[in-house]
Amino acid sequence: MKLYEKTKAGIRPAFEDSMRDAAERLDKLAKPIGSLGKLEDLAVKISGMTGKQSVSFEKKITVIMAADNGVVEEGVSSCPQAVTTIQTINFLKGVTGVCVLSKRAGADIRVVDIGVGSDLEYLGLINRKIRKGTSNMAKGPAMSREEAVKAIETGIEMVSQLVSEGYSLFGTGEMGIGNTSTSSAVAMTFLGCSSEAAVGKGAGLTEEGYDNKKSVIEKAISINRPDPMDPVDVLSKVGGFDIAGMTGCFLGAAYHRVPIVIDGFISAAAALAAYRINPLVKDFMIASHCSEEPGYKLVMREIGLEPVLNLGMRLGEGSGCPLAFNVIEAAEAIISQMATLEEAMIESDFLIDIREK
Amino acid sequence: MKLYEKTKAGIRPAFEDSMRDAAERLDKLAKPIGSLGKLEDLAVKISGMTGKQSVSFEKKITVIMAADNGVVEEGVSSCPQAVTTIQTINFLKGVTGVCVLSKRAGADIRVVDIGVGSDLEYLGLINRKIRKGTSNMAKGPAMSREEAVKAIETGIEMVSQLVSEGYSLFGTGEMGIGNTSTSSAVAMTFLGCSSEAAVGKGAGLTEEGYDNKKSVIEKAISINRPDPMDPVDVLSKVGGFDIAGMTGCFLGAAYHRVPIVIDGFISAAAALAAYRINPLVKDFMIASHCSEEPGYKLVMREIGLEPVLNLGMRLGEGSGCPLAFNVIEAAEAIISQMATLEEAMIESDFLIDIREK
Repeated sequence: MKLYEKTKAGIRPAFEDSMRDAAERLDKLAKPIGSLGKLEDLAVKISGMTGKQSVSFEKKITVIMAADNGVVEEGVSSCPQAVTTIQTINFLKGVTGVCVLSKRAGADIRVVDIGVGSDLEYLGLINRKIRKGTSNMAKGPAMSREEAVKAIETGIEMVSQLVSEGYSLFGTGEMGIGNTSTSSAVAMTFLGCSSEAAVGKGAGLTEEGYDNKKSVIEKAISINRPDPMDPVDVLSKVGGFDIAGMTGCFLGAAYHRVPIVIDGFISAAAALAAYRINPLVKDFMIASHCSEEPGYKLVMREIGLEPVLNLGMRLGEGSGCPLAFNVIEAAEAIISQMATLEEAMIESDFLIDIREK
Repeated sequence: MKLYEKTKAGIRPAFEDSMRDAAERLDKLAKPIGSLGKLEDLAVKISGMTGKQSVSFEKKITVIMAADNGVVEEGVSSCPQAVTTIQTINFLKGVTGVCVLSKRAGADIRVVDIGVGSDLEYLGLINRKIRKGTSNMAKGPAMSREEAVKAIETGIEMVSQLVSEGYSLFGTGEMGIGNTSTSSAVAMTFLGCSSEAAVGKGAGLTEEGYDNKKSVIEKAISINRPDPMDPVDVLSKVGGFDIAGMTGCFLGAAYHRVPIVIDGFISAAAALAAYRINPLVKDFMIASHCSEEPGYKLVMREIGLEPVLNLGMRLGEGSGCPLAFNVIEAAEAIISQMATLEEAMIESDFLIDIREK
C-alpha cells in the first residue's frame, strides 16, 4: 500500500478515556469549574491525541512548504514571483516573521523546497522539489494526480522524520506567491461558496486586482471542474505543491498522534483538504489565530475549530504557530502543575483558626 | 502634594515621535504592510510608552492585590470568604493558575495583602493591609475616602518599588471573594448601565444567586449614590481594596511609562477607574484576553481597547497577564529582529540570476 493510502487508513480517533481523565483532573483543580476556558479544552484535546494526561513539549517545530504557483502569470498577486525564492532563503537566514517569532517561542523551523520556481540551494534547505512551480490552473490542472499524491507524501514524510527526531508539537507554514488564490480555489470547491465570500486581497491587491483575482479563480474552477468528493482531485487541479505538502503534514501528524497547529488561510485550506481525506484529522488540529483573509472563517466553521488568538494577522509563513505554541504550553502547564482543590486546602488547618478569629 | 495627586498630575501622553518612528520601521520590514496586525499595533504602542523603538522585557511581573469584601455577607458569591485567605497563600506556594502560567512565561508575581480578612503572615507576602476587608457596601460605603486613596497609593508604591527593582512589564491580578460584585458596581456607576448588562455569575452562581447578586449591587449603588465624576468616591463607596490597589498600579505604571496588562473583569474595572482619574493612562494599558464576564466588553469599549487573546477565561488572579506577556514579547521581537525589505533583498544578486534562468 502506498504511504498516502497507509497514512489515510491508519489514523485513529482521539482516546476518549484519556480525555475523560484529563477533564476530571481539570475539574479537581483549585479554580472554578471551566474557568480557564479554551486552555482547558486544549489540555483535554491534547490528552486525546497523546493518551497522556500531560505532555512536555521540549521540541516544537513549524514546517514551511515553499513552492511557486503557475497562476501568478494571471496577475493574481501584488508581489513578484521571485519573492518566493527570496523569502525561502530569508527563512534560512532567520530574519522573517515566522523565524523571529519561533526563536522567541523556543521553537524551530524546517524549510522544504517542494516546488520553488528556481534552482535553489541553501544550507539547511530541504530539497523535495516536485517541479519548478505548478502549471497555471486558469488554463488547466495545476499538477497531475501523481504529483499531488507525491506532495502529500512529502508532508507525511517530513512529519515522520521530525517525530523520529523528537519533535512533539508541530506548526504548518508556507511561502508561495499566489497561494491565497489557490487556497481560495480549494476552499470554494470544498465549500461550494462564492468567490465573493472566499477571496481576499492577499498581501495587498488594488480593487481592480481583486476583481481580476476573483475571476481568475472562478475560471480555474470552471475549466478544471475539481470533484469536491475527491480531495486529491481538488488539490491537483486547483491547489499547489505547498498546500498539498501541508495537507500531508496534517495527515502525518494525526497518524503519529501529535498536535499540529493551523496558521492562516493557506494552512486552513490544507487542513480542510486533510479533513476531507479523513475527518479524524480534526482531533489533532489546533487553530492558532483568526486570519484576516475572508475564507479563513468559513473553513474554520466547516471543520469546527476556533482559534485562540485574535491578532488581525495576515502574514502567513506559519507566523501564527509559534504564538499558539505558547498557549498550548500554557494549557499543559495548567493540567500538570496546578494544585487540586484538595491539595490547595490540605495545609489550611491553621487557616481555619484564622477564619474563626 | 500627596503621592496620589502627584502621580495623577505627572502622567504624560505617549511619545508621538517614537510611535511614528516605530510605525515607519514596521512598514520597512520584509512583509506586507500591516500584515502582523495587532503585533504591530503593540510594538507602536510600546514605543509610545517607553520612547524606544524596541525594548527587551527581561523582568516581567504580575502584582496581585488580595482583599476581602464586606458585601459577601449578602450571599453574592458561591465561594466561602475563607477562600481569599487560602488562595493568597496558594499564590505564594506557586500552585494557582496565575503562578503556573507566570512561571511558564518566565514572569514573576508579587502578592500584596491589601485587606485580607484574616491575620495572615506568609513568606513573601507583602503586608499592606488597610483593614480586614471592606464594610458591606449594601449597607453603606465600603471604605472611607482616605482608605481609598491609601489603597490607590499602595498600588502606585508597589509599581514604583518594582520599577526600581528592574521590572519593565507589568500585569494586574487580584484575589477577593465577592469582587465581581464590587467590579460590577464600579462599572455600572461609571458607565450608567443596568445590572443586567454588567453583572455575571462570577465563579458559578445559581440563577437565584444571580438575581440576588444583581439586587444587592443595585442596592449598594442606590444607598451610596457614588458620584461617577469622582472616581475616588466610586472606589470608596462601591469598590474594594483590591480594585483601588489595582487602580493605583495602572496610575503608577503610566507615571513610570511602563506597559501594564489588564487581566479580566476586576482588573478592567480598576483600569476604568484609572482611566477616569486620568485618561492618559490608556496609552500604557494593554488588554490581554476577552473575559467571559459580561461587564468586561462594556468596559473595554468605553476605554477603547481590544484584547489579543480569545480564550473564554474567567479565572481572574491575573491569569491572562502572563499569556499576554508572550504576545507583547512577540511584538517586540518583530520590531527588533525582523529584517527590513532592503536587508532581505541585499544579498539576492544571485537570486536575480536564478530568476532569469
